[in-house]
Formats: sequence, C-alpha cells, structure tokens
Amino acid sequence: MEQRLSMITLGVADLKKAKAFYENVVGWEATPSPPEIAFFDLGGLVFSLYPLEDMAKDRNAAPDAAGSGGSQSFALAHNARSKEDVDAIFSRLREKGAAILKEPEEVFWGGYSGYFADFDGHAWEVAYNPHWVILEDGRVSMTKG
Amino acid sequence: MEQRLSMITLGVADLKKAKAFYENVVGWEATPSPPEIAFFDLGGLVFSLYPLEDMAKDRNAAPDAAGSGGSQSFALAHNARSKEDVDAIFSRLREKGAAILKEPEEVFWGGYSGYFADFDGHAWEVAYNPHWVILEDGRVSMTKG
Repeated sequence: MEQRLSMITLGVADLKKAKAFYENVVGWEATPSPPEIAFFDLGGLVFSLYPLEDMAKDRNAAPDAAGSGGSQSFALAHNARSKEDVDAIFSRLREKGAAILKEPEEVFWGGYSGYFADFDGHAWEVAYNPHWVILEDGRVSMTKG
Repeated sequence: MEQRLSMITLGVADLKKAKAFYENVVGWEATPSPPEIAFFDLGGLVFSLYPLEDMAKDRNAAPDAAGSGGSQSFALAHNARSKEDVDAIFSRLREKGAAILKEPEEVFWGGYSGYFADFDGHAWEVAYNPHWVILEDGRVSMTKG
C-alpha cells in the first residue's frame, strides 16, 4: 500500500449542520457533492462529512458495535489506482494477519472497496473509485482531467 | 483557516505495537521520530500515532471525557504559518461561535497550539510548529530546508 492517504471522513449526526459549520465557521468551500455526503478538497486530500449510520452500514457494522475507542466516528481511506491494486493490498494484509472488516466488493457508488482495522481497531477503507483520478504524486483529483 | 490538513493523529494503546503494525503489516516507513510518538510522512501530510492518555492530556481532557463518539481516539491538526496566524484563526472561530476546547498557548514540544471542536465534537488542533515548514502549496515539510 503506497504511503499516502486519499480521504478522511468524519461521521456526523446532521449533515446539513455539520457542512454549514465547515463553511460558515471554519470558512471552507465544499466541492459540488451528492446530497448524501459533503466533500471538501484539501489540496489533493478529500475531507468528507458523512452521516454516522451510513458510515456504519458502509463497513458492515452495527451503529454502535464497531469496536472500542469510537473508531467508527471517522474513517481513513486509501484510494488505489485499480481494482487489482485493491485486491493486491488485501492479499498482503491478509497474509500479514491484519483484521479484515469487509472483503473488497463492488459498492453502490460505483467503486470497489473493502475495510481493514489497524492494531487499535481504527478502520481503513481501501478503495478503487473510477470517478476520481490518483495523480502520479498520490494526490486525488476529484474531476477527471 | 486555509483549506488544508497538516496532521492526523490516531490514539493508540501501545505505541510500539501500533507502529510495528504500520511498518510490518501496512508496509510504511516511519520518519525518525521522538520516542513518545511515531510520524509517517504521507507526502506532505503527517500521519502520527500517539498514546491515548497523552492525547487526552494534550487537549486538557480526562481520558474518557472528551465528548461522545469517541472523538478522542483521533485528532486532526491544521498547522498555521505563525503564532499570529493561530491567534487570528481562534479569533474568527470564537467570533463565529465555535466551541474552544483549549485556548492557544505555548506547549511543551516548543510550539503554540489550541483546540476547537467541530459541530459534532470532533477535535481540531490549530498549531504553529517552529520545527516544521509549511510549503507554499500547504504541504508540511518535517525537515527545515
């Protein structure tokens, strides 16, 4: 797995209010986003706000059963460059004994994604997203060039 | 506050084991780090592992009192370019009604740092770190040029 992070997602109780906080209080500008999520482009790293229940569903977890430490209130994602890369990353993780939370599979938003847990149970998504481009230096571009 | 993230910190129970997981299982290489923390350079974004208790102390919170959702098992940091920038960011946050978790102050590692909470209680540190350089494009360089 290349040494980079593509997206960080914070779980939120009320998407509209959470988005308004980052826009009005912090002063950031959201990228045009589907209604069920809010994306902010932090210079090639995607920062996203996503309802807590949807987040739990995404990783096949009950809303309050995703492990200690409240690790389900956020998620880190590494976007691979292809489906084959996702599979290769999971092969290695499995071989090295990492806890796989969800085997990679085709997902509703058109991508291919799985989850693993780090040593403390923090969830990492590893995904291939055909709508985004991973630039050579590892940054994410949300608009196809 | 410029639209960028400088560091993401995950709270860990055992620093040595957590670091070994990212090195041996994920396959990443840590940057030379002080013994009490582990840094990984993700291309201008610093990923760090830090003991949970130290994290709570850092933001003046009891280890289990930092709000719902386990928001204390991770922290996001925005590194400003100067102490004055940190103060200006907190002035705006205060004026806009954000919850300030810790007013900015000189801290033991040589920097100047404060914390605020977003709408859901997720903690953000805003810091000036004299040991790191913020490049023009917002990426962090951990070695002085």
